[in-house]
Amino acid sequence: MARPSPERLLLASYPVRTVIPTRFQDLDAMGHINNVAFAALFEDARVRFNRALGRMDRADGLRAVVARNEINYLAEGSYPDDVEIATGVARIGNRSWDVAAVMHQHGRAIATCDTTIVMTHPAAGSLPADFRARLDEVTMRAG
Amino acid sequence: MARPSPERLLLASYPVRTVIPTRFQDLDAMGHINNVAFAALFEDARVRFNRALGRMDRADGLRAVVARNEINYLAEGSYPDDVEIATGVARIGNRSWDVAAVMHQHGRAIATCDTTIVMTHPAAGSLPADFRARLDEVTMRAG
Amino acid sequence: MARPSPERLLLASYPVRTVIPTRFQDLDAMGHINNVAFAALFEDARVRFNRALGRMDRADGLRAVVARNEINYLAEGSYPDDVEIATGVARIGNRSWDVAAVMHQHGRAIATCDTTIVMTHPAAGSLPADFRARLDEVTMRAG
Amino acid sequence: MARPSPERLLLASYPVRTVIPTRFQDLDAMGHINNVAFAALFEDARVRFNRALGRMDRADGLRAVVARNEINYLAEGSYPDDVEIATGVARIGNRSWDVAAVMHQHGRAIATCDTTIVMTHPAAGSLPADFRARLDEVTMRAG
Repeated sequence: MARPSPERLLLASYPVRTVIPTRFQDLDAMGHINNVAFAALFEDARVRFNRALGRMDRADGLRAVVARNEINYLAEGSYPDDVEIATGVARIGNRSWDVAAVMHQHGRAIATCDTTIVMTHPAAGSLPADFRARLDEVTMRAG
Repeated sequence: MARPSPERLLLASYPVRTVIPTRFQDLDAMGHINNVAFAALFEDARVRFNRALGRMDRADGLRAVVARNEINYLAEGSYPDDVEIATGVARIGNRSWDVAAVMHQHGRAIATCDTTIVMTHPAAGSLPADFRARLDEVTMRAG
Repeated sequence: MARPSPERLLLASYPVRTVIPTRFQDLDAMGHINNVAFAALFEDARVRFNRALGRMDRADGLRAVVARNEINYLAEGSYPDDVEIATGVARIGNRSWDVAAVMHQHGRAIATCDTTIVMTHPAAGSLPADFRARLDEVTMRAG
Repeated sequence: MARPSPERLLLASYPVRTVIPTRFQDLDAMGHINNVAFAALFEDARVRFNRALGRMDRADGLRAVVARNEINYLAEGSYPDDVEIATGVARIGNRSWDVAAVMHQHGRAIATCDTTIVMTHPAAGSLPADFRARLDEVTMRAG
């Protein structure tokens, strides 16, 4: 079990941040933020992050799908306090890229998320140059 | 991006199976089963799998939490058809174990899930012998 | 607070039945099936009920939306046991209809649901005769 | 179908307001905020409203449960914009009370919610006087 590196836990390592209020629905039977609710919170931050990139999938007739998602749970989350999620691009490949994120609550990291997004298209080649340039602008900062 | 091995995609590689109907709530704006809904479906199969193990956390004053969850998305899922999830123990460590699962729909694998569960307790030593024996009984079968 | 009539609580009062497994996600912090999860379960039964009617909205260029939804909570629901939902048409109006449902678990009614569905269309007149005939076939049975 | 009165649609008719960001999970297959997501949003506003009342259920050994919930859907909701929910007490009974709410988005009402909450206790009499006084302080304002 390789755990996230110390830099991955710092909000300052990521270029984009968003604050999301927790909801009563996020709680599970143990009274904590549920594991799947963490996934939904990371998803919301990632969708907003992707939209800010300019929606490659529509403009260029391309489509991007999530191929892999990994969450490391570091501490319990509680309701009704907000969480803050910081997000950045961790890798740019030929036809895919990785989005990394960390979730903070009460001043400490409670989870990290690593998502691989793949471009799918019948005749898809590599990522368009302008989209790759936009990904470059939101890559993670050196720790 | 290491993808799941061929044996990981076979229902026959796992000792326990469960069929779960999809719900309208599982759909997202693209009309497919949402990524987070996959996580909820795998969670339900895993909770039922863990309960069948005999609830170590209560009987022994111990508690088990999810430390890591990774999902590989292989194909889109659709509503209203059922999914079938097959589950097994993939690793037994000193204080943790891994649960592996595959989700099928329409006769093919659409996702895999790998979950690391960790025993947490102020004075927790290693996994109790009887619980380890129960984990042994539901380990994955050789491919 | 008018409570549901005794006939509304009987599965036999409704023409269509469906069994739905509960999910771990349905639980809330009190360890019971959450109120909103009841709404999701009723929604799934209603979507399947509506689909069996033949999708008026697509075939005829019309669209149907939920205008009102009322749930009466009668008893707590538990996980991991199945619920059974029985559904029928309770009223057919000029441009709208009501769908009524009851949810059972462990042999007793735990909730009822009343939904008003309205046809919306720029030039929508009254409900098409053939669709009205299909609604007639799945009306609630006399108590 | 009695529709909500004009005063019920005004934020100014309610004593308490909260802004909630929508989430990608709130969308359904039609690309709008799903009906059940409306219920989850109203629930979150109501839980926060109830907590501000001082948690009668714990302090006094009493417990309050939702007996009825009715939502009137007035217009479609969209993502990723925030919604604003205004909440107030609409009725104080002997052993129950009603909470009323309206949801706004883009400057107009898109739904109302009416919830009946009932005190349950083996030996429960009427609502405690101090709790009733707290309910009085957050009743709806005259239209």
